Amino acid sequence: MNIESMQFASRFNGISGSAIREIFKLLAVPGMISFAGGNPSLSALPDEQCAELARELLLDKGKILLQYGATEGYAPLRESLVPYLKDRFSFDCKADEILPVTGSTQAMDLLCKALIDPGDKVVVENPTFLGNMQAIRLYQAELVPVDSDDDGIKVDELEEVFKKEHPKMLYIIPTFQNPTGRTLSLERRKKIAALASQYGVVVAEDDPYRDLRYTGRELPSIKSFDSEGWVAFMGSFSKVISPGLRVGFLAANPALLRKCVIGKQSSDVHTANLSQAIVDAYLRRNLLMPHVEEICKSYAQQMNTMLGLLAKCGGVARYTKPEGGLFIFAELNEGMNALNLLMKCVDKGVAYVPGTHFYPGGGHENTFRLNFSMCTVEQIEKGMELMNEVFSENL
Amino acid sequence: MNIESMQFASRFNGISGSAIREIFKLLAVPGMISFAGGNPSLSALPDEQCAELARELLLDKGKILLQYGATEGYAPLRESLVPYLKDRFSFDCKADEILPVTGSTQAMDLLCKALIDPGDKVVVENPTFLGNMQAIRLYQAELVPVDSDDDGIKVDELEEVFKKEHPKMLYIIPTFQNPTGRTLSLERRKKIAALASQYGVVVAEDDPYRDLRYTGRELPSIKSFDSEGWVAFMGSFSKVISPGLRVGFLAANPALLRKCVIGKQSSDVHTANLSQAIVDAYLRRNLLMPHVEEICKSYAQQMNTMLGLLAKCGGVARYTKPEGGLFIFAELNEGMNALNLLMKCVDKGVAYVPGTHFYPGGGHENTFRLNFSMCTVEQIEKGMELMNEVFSENL
Repeated sequence: MNIESMQFASRFNGISGSAIREIFKLLAVPGMISFAGGNPSLSALPDEQCAELARELLLDKGKILLQYGATEGYAPLRESLVPYLKDRFSFDCKADEILPVTGSTQAMDLLCKALIDPGDKVVVENPTFLGNMQAIRLYQAELVPVDSDDDGIKVDELEEVFKKEHPKMLYIIPTFQNPTGRTLSLERRKKIAALASQYGVVVAEDDPYRDLRYTGRELPSIKSFDSEGWVAFMGSFSKVISPGLRVGFLAANPALLRKCVIGKQSSDVHTANLSQAIVDAYLRRNLLMPHVEEICKSYAQQMNTMLGLLAKCGGVARYTKPEGGLFIFAELNEGMNALNLLMKCVDKGVAYVPGTHFYPGGGHENTFRLNFSMCTVEQIEKGMELMNEVFSENL
Repeated sequence: MNIESMQFASRFNGISGSAIREIFKLLAVPGMISFAGGNPSLSALPDEQCAELARELLLDKGKILLQYGATEGYAPLRESLVPYLKDRFSFDCKADEILPVTGSTQAMDLLCKALIDPGDKVVVENPTFLGNMQAIRLYQAELVPVDSDDDGIKVDELEEVFKKEHPKMLYIIPTFQNPTGRTLSLERRKKIAALASQYGVVVAEDDPYRDLRYTGRELPSIKSFDSEGWVAFMGSFSKVISPGLRVGFLAANPALLRKCVIGKQSSDVHTANLSQAIVDAYLRRNLLMPHVEEICKSYAQQMNTMLGLLAKCGGVARYTKPEGGLFIFAELNEGMNALNLLMKCVDKGVAYVPGTHFYPGGGHENTFRLNFSMCTVEQIEKGMELMNEVFSENL
């Protein structure tokens, strides 16, 4: 039978792969200044430290690390996550309520696997992270967008949606959100935890950027206000140690976590032990926060440079002023089209991601997302100058 | 709302986690001789070699390895898999037709994600590997078992099932099958490739044990007889380098592979780069086959010891005589119950896996699976003596 007749699963209807990843292919031109990615700076990746740690760990406990591990995760890492979660995210949980995963992307996948039947509704911020929108869509859920303002998602609208639409889950990035860079206010964090319990909606709290704070004061996680167990917390070491290691974690109530463990058994059996052990060493030996402080110094300077130049950039009507993270979200004058202008920018040698991709319903063609972590201050100055030229010529 | 009211996805109906993993919890008694697992021997895990490789690779290209990688896999590994597949599995494919994955378990998960809608039928060998039965069930497919004999799955019955049931997929382990240790004959390999094309059924060929051959001659893969692209080939380095690294691969036709790549984007973005680079070094530097030869010497001795003692074991009516791999499958006299006798064996200090777990429809309570890789020859002798005592007392 002709191979063209192969029938794929209906979950792929309308799914075409990440639009961002397609944009990245445009950027392979030497000298391109990319504000498009969301990667850590190369200088932030601790290659020498990881090299020595990997060797030491494999010499010391290689037989354990190279053998099959538990689906539930590398036990020392689960233990060292307990004080980390308490210290950094202000919530108590036991080691066996934490599941190390293959990047927080897997946490989202497992939560969907555990909870979502086709046709279920999942509330997302409008705009939100493209990657997890696709994850949710692959589970054939219906995305229900709720707008956000400078304090994060609008909780009054959220409550209306909870009441009317009976969603299964809220997916939310409370700190230095992707793509907006915005942070959910303290009051709204409390309110969302309360709404989750009140309406029986699982909150998938995705907080990978929190440690990258350059100004302002830290806020406790939504999970810290969760008395009943409706909040599932997803963390990641991709932004603060290394994305290439693929280590994140999920903290959730035991019944939900158990479903995720069963789902993970069939997904990848367990996360690579060596990766887990390296992250464990960062936590256990207090290597993480000094490393994060180093990174933050440089990222803060990069962000401030970009914010300063955005203020003077032709065609830019407004933009967010994040206190941390990796992204700034900007709006061009009404009528300007960031999708069309991207091609002109790429021709000049600078790139960003059009904001429309982050809206579940599309539209918002005058918005765009800027990343500042992957460029030096000099590259940011040069890139913003090129963008200014293109935008100013197309007012 | 009370957390007890949380509704899980219907894919979990009737799924309770791996029965084998529950058995493993019984085995945590010191001194227990376990024929229950499927792990490599600890002495087969190249900890020192991996320690030096990890350090060298991270010092040499740490910035690449610690950064985000492509979902499609670490490019050097994809390239070094091409000659490996040609040499070991007798089929040609291009680097971009290969997807490195987080253990071959992920290959199965992605194939199901790409192909299976609830209610679709998947043919499996009867008995077959428990882990992937669960993976298939989580996609809400209906398992259709087809019996096997000493030459592997019965192809006449298989054709009948293809004709009548219109399955979406056949899941098959052609070499040193889990749990039987049997190897599919050359004629049947050809026939299955032909049937796949004729009836438009995807063959998921799972071949993780092939390099562990202790006697007899190698056979080409089913994929090597696949002219149309209906065979998807899954390989693993878990049995020959390390399961803890979590590296396997999928080779499939471009349209199917593309769906798997999109599915993987949302599952874990990509497989840990360091793990991929270590496996790449084994292939690229010709470290793999000398290492495999070492392992095989020892495993062969362990298998032969076990086979010799099985011949003299009370209550054992028959057993398979594998030419490699990790498992032997045995049958007790009619009326004896391997499930009940397991508890008596565990009390004495030896364990196996009851065969019933490997049959989609259960039953076959007089069968059991033995693993020989994780025990020394002395432990095998001792464990078989204990088993012999229990079985002989319960004839």
